[in-house]
Amino acid sequence: MKEVKKLWEEVRELSLGNNSEVERLNSAPTPLQFLRDHVSQNKPFIIKKPNLHWPAFSLWPQPSYLSNKLSSSLVSVHLTPNGRADSIVNHLGSLCFASAHVERMPFDEAIKLVSNSNLQDSKLVAYLQQQNDCFRSEYSVLGSECDEHIPWATEALGCYPEAVNLWIGNHLSETSFHKDHYENLYVVVSGKKHFLLLPPTDVHRMYIRQYPAANYSYSPDVGEFTVELERPMRFVPWCSVNPYPSPETRESEMAKFPSFFDGPKPFECTVNAGEILYLPSMWFHHVRQSPDDNGFTIAVNYWYDMQFDIKYAYFNFLQSIHYKSPHGPTLLEIECGDSGSVASAPNEGEADKVTEDE
Amino acid sequence: MKEVKKLWEEVRELSLGNNSEVERLNSAPTPLQFLRDHVSQNKPFIIKKPNLHWPAFSLWPQPSYLSNKLSSSLVSVHLTPNGRADSIVNHLGSLCFASAHVERMPFDEAIKLVSNSNLQDSKLVAYLQQQNDCFRSEYSVLGSECDEHIPWATEALGCYPEAVNLWIGNHLSETSFHKDHYENLYVVVSGKKHFLLLPPTDVHRMYIRQYPAANYSYSPDVGEFTVELERPMRFVPWCSVNPYPSPETRESEMAKFPSFFDGPKPFECTVNAGEILYLPSMWFHHVRQSPDDNGFTIAVNYWYDMQFDIKYAYFNFLQSIHYKSPHGPTLLEIECGDSGSVASAPNEGEADKVTEDE
Repeated sequence: MKEVKKLWEEVRELSLGNNSEVERLNSAPTPLQFLRDHVSQNKPFIIKKPNLHWPAFSLWPQPSYLSNKLSSSLVSVHLTPNGRADSIVNHLGSLCFASAHVERMPFDEAIKLVSNSNLQDSKLVAYLQQQNDCFRSEYSVLGSECDEHIPWATEALGCYPEAVNLWIGNHLSETSFHKDHYENLYVVVSGKKHFLLLPPTDVHRMYIRQYPAANYSYSPDVGEFTVELERPMRFVPWCSVNPYPSPETRESEMAKFPSFFDGPKPFECTVNAGEILYLPSMWFHHVRQSPDDNGFTIAVNYWYDMQFDIKYAYFNFLQSIHYKSPHGPTLLEIECGDSGSVASAPNEGEADKVTEDE
Repeated sequence: MKEVKKLWEEVRELSLGNNSEVERLNSAPTPLQFLRDHVSQNKPFIIKKPNLHWPAFSLWPQPSYLSNKLSSSLVSVHLTPNGRADSIVNHLGSLCFASAHVERMPFDEAIKLVSNSNLQDSKLVAYLQQQNDCFRSEYSVLGSECDEHIPWATEALGCYPEAVNLWIGNHLSETSFHKDHYENLYVVVSGKKHFLLLPPTDVHRMYIRQYPAANYSYSPDVGEFTVELERPMRFVPWCSVNPYPSPETRESEMAKFPSFFDGPKPFECTVNAGEILYLPSMWFHHVRQSPDDNGFTIAVNYWYDMQFDIKYAYFNFLQSIHYKSPHGPTLLEIECGDSGSVASAPNEGEADKVTEDE
């Protein structure tokens, strides 16, 4: 369907640029510039020198600072065997959507798990995160060490953030492709975050399919994870593409997801400590990270409510069109069970109700 | 194609409202409000009390004020037999797109023609307009009597208007459905303007087809118009729908354009003297007018450059999809010559390059 392919190209030619690079601003935009040049246009950017005077930048990367400060706090930790929560895994020969094993524990215990995940024979990767406004609840004692909101964004968007989340992980933590229904301002405090970004117009390149929901379950005694399907069955629409397949699976992944691998390159960017990424609502993003000298990557992100306007209506329309890749079967065929390894989707119309993410 | 129909409904449910009414603000928005709540969302509004202190409001409606002030000015006048320039007319059994006969003449002569058009047996309707920034050229002596730009819009959009146009007509002048690639701020100085508005998502409801370009030609001696096809042939994509068919043609028009007449109601609004309409880029609009006590409708509009962003790319994608009305043949079939009365379209891809308009 050449019209869909043309859309991928046109949005780059007209607005985003053809070089797959995210615009870098030297300093923060004014509220008007932010709205006009980015929110309205649904266009990401990075601010190199956002003029944030947060004590967090010097304090949090210090070994033991956070452990002392948060000694009496209970925090949520996401545990997985490999750093990949919310990812598609093969369970008994069938693909499913596996969420992390989530546990609340004292901060110093939790941060030790993150550290230990770096050990070579570790079978457990811990990621301190919880996307429920955790910074303002579990980490409230740190509140004075960074900003409660991003002033120019708050003024532009006319509201305070709906949620502020803290992320502390290591080089193993990875977030699979997904999109959020929020305008997202992502501040890296320590280490680096590596993003792959695709505009909402590229929805058919993500091969969103319905996967049965499952959860990792960790047994401390055995030191191992099992995958447990939710009962009753629940289906989660999720992107099927892994943008970094292993050398062994690369060829088969490229054959399965040709529109992703053969289409325009994703926008690729690294957000360094002290920088801010504006990640526009509805953009698909995949996140990896590099740690600081102590082995940690620390970030705070601000979720602002998005507007469900004509752009959102256009997106839903686009997603409702069944794109037939020149290389393979239609999404419709796949989603309705042409592919043996995915359980058949009960409700294709739910395909954009994404649940949880970075 | 139910997906397209769903889009018409969803953009109303999510963003524009289901009551087909244009939002009315009591006072002008701030630049941030304008960008956030309207430009970014592509959503029209009317300002009841825009706090404009223009001498124009009291001076221009006075009989003879403009004639005295503009006595030495040459202005462009659009002449048609019926007030409908840029409209689809039947010429020798075939439909074509007829532009007005345009003449430059002294202002007092021109304004007399507008007045005389009101006479019952007049076969000539004059409309003082020219969409080439005419206010700042032909009418520059009036420059100090209204604003050069709309300050909150200029600040929001980050630029001055690309064009400012003056419109002086009477109750007979009517502008057929079309869209502009501009953000439009429309100020009525005297009389009233009646708009029908449809969002860009409704493009398939407008039955845009390629019509051979033609021009009205007026012979003062005979006092009559002829229609002359342009040579070499040139095709203009134009909306086929007349929203106000005569009682005799109503049934056949409804049968020809079912998606327009059976779909969601157009947004309908009247802009009174002293009010401002924000007409977002890419919205289809049809304009009629009611005169003031002297028989004139006077308006000034400001065209600001639009952004060719993701919304525009989505629009082009939508337009490229061939919508099959449940009632009739596909647009593709029609556009490619299934309908005997329209000459076959040489280049359907040109269908959104609209030329001239209100």
